[in-house]
Amino acid sequence: MKTGRITELFGIDKPVISGGMVWCSGHRLASAVSDCGGLGLIGSGSMHPDTLREHIEKCKAETDRPFGVNLSLFYPQLEEAVDIIMETGVKVVFISAGNPALLTRRFKDAGITVVHVVSSTKFALKAEAAGVDAVVVEGFEAGGHNGRDETATMVLVPAVCRAVKIPVIAAGGIATGAQIAAAFALGAEGVQMGTRFALCDESSASDAFKERCRSLAEGGTMLTLKKSGNIRMVKNELYERIEAAIDGCASADEIKEIVGTRRAKLGIFEGDMKEGMLEIGQTATLVDRSESVADIFADIEAGYAEAVGRL
Amino acid sequence: MKTGRITELFGIDKPVISGGMVWCSGHRLASAVSDCGGLGLIGSGSMHPDTLREHIEKCKAETDRPFGVNLSLFYPQLEEAVDIIMETGVKVVFISAGNPALLTRRFKDAGITVVHVVSSTKFALKAEAAGVDAVVVEGFEAGGHNGRDETATMVLVPAVCRAVKIPVIAAGGIATGAQIAAAFALGAEGVQMGTRFALCDESSASDAFKERCRSLAEGGTMLTLKKSGNIRMVKNELYERIEAAIDGCASADEIKEIVGTRRAKLGIFEGDMKEGMLEIGQTATLVDRSESVADIFADIEAGYAEAVGRL
Repeated sequence: MKTGRITELFGIDKPVISGGMVWCSGHRLASAVSDCGGLGLIGSGSMHPDTLREHIEKCKAETDRPFGVNLSLFYPQLEEAVDIIMETGVKVVFISAGNPALLTRRFKDAGITVVHVVSSTKFALKAEAAGVDAVVVEGFEAGGHNGRDETATMVLVPAVCRAVKIPVIAAGGIATGAQIAAAFALGAEGVQMGTRFALCDESSASDAFKERCRSLAEGGTMLTLKKSGNIRMVKNELYERIEAAIDGCASADEIKEIVGTRRAKLGIFEGDMKEGMLEIGQTATLVDRSESVADIFADIEAGYAEAVGRL
Repeated sequence: MKTGRITELFGIDKPVISGGMVWCSGHRLASAVSDCGGLGLIGSGSMHPDTLREHIEKCKAETDRPFGVNLSLFYPQLEEAVDIIMETGVKVVFISAGNPALLTRRFKDAGITVVHVVSSTKFALKAEAAGVDAVVVEGFEAGGHNGRDETATMVLVPAVCRAVKIPVIAAGGIATGAQIAAAFALGAEGVQMGTRFALCDESSASDAFKERCRSLAEGGTMLTLKKSGNIRMVKNELYERIEAAIDGCASADEIKEIVGTRRAKLGIFEGDMKEGMLEIGQTATLVDRSESVADIFADIEAGYAEAVGRL
């Protein structure tokens, strides 16, 4: 894997970013990824402000390499998160959901590199206009929250690359060196990997979640809740109940009641495989073993070289 | 683009196949693709047996190069189609839908090369066990009938490549040289392109259909009718009526009545943009001009070289 605009942007060796996923992406995962030459992201979405601060400090202690924080614009204590990021000297922020114009300028003025996560060319252009340094372009394959157009990575990445001048980081369905090579062939200059890192040793997800997702067959996930979040999850008992309600034309309130709250924590962190919301990508079907971040980097380098050799 | 198992299998120069699409893939398109060094397929799905025979004979007259026929196992006069294929000396058959064990042996015994179109690893393995020479592996991005698992090309291609020994032809979301390079990076040895050829000059689709699809924005198609066909189509008035019915929990019969019959012919061939079923892939968003098959081959060669250069 070559250096280029993305490695230069973040001051890293390999254009590989680990997504800042709720309940998975703590300081352990982020620092391990950064130590391997990639860019690790801390997932603030499942952290109280104090917890976020703690994870940032631990990450700083664990690695000298650059790392970043993923922040959703729906984070309840948004202003506190912004303060913490600035006070602790975090140098990179990946922002997901919402209007890129909201925080970009403030972070940029503080000397922080800003990347916005999008799922359409329209929002990639908005992010570029708002002054972000790069965009993560996330296709239909991705776990968790998804774009409404359902555009898959194979189409979305070249579409965005045609439209913007800033570097594009591809995400969604990327777990192996071959898929990374494919993403670069499409025009991406970096990749963000979620699923594979969510299921590795350093991820703070429960063992039950990791084992369940590693054993997933093809078609083991599905996009659902299209009117209230548009989320890709494992087809477990909770999913079946949600689908039955949608199928039976339940009201938005009835569906909301079935979904409840804290389902992601219940599933991913606490390991309840039936009642939890198990957010993972389609590419879990290619992840089938227990492995460390270092194992992953060795494997994707080898796979990448093999794929390039095919061309 | 290099030669290899797929070019050898069909006796062609470039591992690029044009899909045998209803109302689009007549002798003109097939012979033009074959003349450019690829493999053109005649789409039997929208042809009465006599029409199929006529298109095969015209194709034989128009090109000395190999071409094939795409045949769905739901074709009403299946036995007649098999007879016509054998009598006219067609050397390549791509079979879609249904059990690969049904016709594979008969065609193989007649010296015909057989490829089965699948949308899952499970069915790829069945096809391989049935003795096919290769599989087309078609991802979620593709227009028309789709797999139930909704596995996108970026994940499906490597998954199938891991599982089977026969060569894999990637389809779904492939229109440009960069996407072809990506498919090869993932392990495919050939590509089948649908959308881009459906919208080109030699396609027998109506000008209205071509123009409509070329002007499609991202997110302009959606997968619907998940319980009765699982079809990706343009989000036109017909689509909205279907979705409203599904949303309102209409019965299977009510939905069947809205869909009616001959909607694909109405839309694709006759050019009714509101009432027709406009089957096209997500990658239509990258197709924006009138072009010939020769233009397409020149463009994909250039794009492929550029993409390989990026790696």
